[in-house]
Amino acid sequence: MSDMTEQFAIMVEQGIEFVRRMGLKVIEMKPRYIELKVQLEGNTNHIGTMYAGALFTLAEIPGGALFMTTFDVSSYYPIVKEMTLKFKRPVTTDATVKVAVTEEEVENINKEAAENGKAEFVLKGEIFDDSGQLVAESTGIYQLRKLGT
Amino acid sequence: MSDMTEQFAIMVEQGIEFVRRMGLKVIEMKPRYIELKVQLEGNTNHIGTMYAGALFTLAEIPGGALFMTTFDVSSYYPIVKEMTLKFKRPVTTDATVKVAVTEEEVENINKEAAENGKAEFVLKGEIFDDSGQLVAESTGIYQLRKLGT
Repeated sequence: MSDMTEQFAIMVEQGIEFVRRMGLKVIEMKPRYIELKVQLEGNTNHIGTMYAGALFTLAEIPGGALFMTTFDVSSYYPIVKEMTLKFKRPVTTDATVKVAVTEEEVENINKEAAENGKAEFVLKGEIFDDSGQLVAESTGIYQLRKLGT
Repeated sequence: MSDMTEQFAIMVEQGIEFVRRMGLKVIEMKPRYIELKVQLEGNTNHIGTMYAGALFTLAEIPGGALFMTTFDVSSYYPIVKEMTLKFKRPVTTDATVKVAVTEEEVENINKEAAENGKAEFVLKGEIFDDSGQLVAESTGIYQLRKLGT
């Protein structure tokens, strides 16, 4: 990872105490692509599979991480307006989330934000277990807002 | 609280390490009604308001808590299939979630579970800050399943 990306990774892993407590790790963090991991240990529910709140957090953090690598942090800030998680099967291993956006999506968001001072956009994430099975899907509605508004 | 309710409260507050770490507290826990609280301290995001993952967990736990006080735990277990959180405004204080179901809703769920061995149901929750303002809304899709299935 470049020095800048390492700085971003430290912010993602350490910047929020709630996230630090669950031991979230950055696997890859670059423009338009985020991959994060959370360990099963310490994040289980009462039946030993991964607790829903840990999966939610794993799915929510990529929004902010993607903002840092992909958008103009000197002009905008992101907020999360709504988040849906679909739990497809119990998670019995560590879990990895992958979130990607296309160049075209980024251009459209930037264009709308420049015109209106804000832009709403949807990020979809997929969570996999260690065998590569899809275990959960997330849909987040975010808004980019001009700093100072 | 009755002895039984106290036992349930301990399970809710202590049973899942992830939940224990954020310091979730039971305010009220009785048949068809759950009220839980989480402190702001230790659960903030990078700008000092309550982190989305803490609000999600606060909204998710009532499903299991309500199951314990309201349904037949000797015959069924609950799973969460999908959960949506709408973040209406930044939370700058401790937060409280309230979830209630009617007697009629419980009867319908029990009837369907007895007939089909499972029953899907929706729980809506409201999260308030310490001034009583509605700060977030949750919609959870749960399923009651016959033990052993």
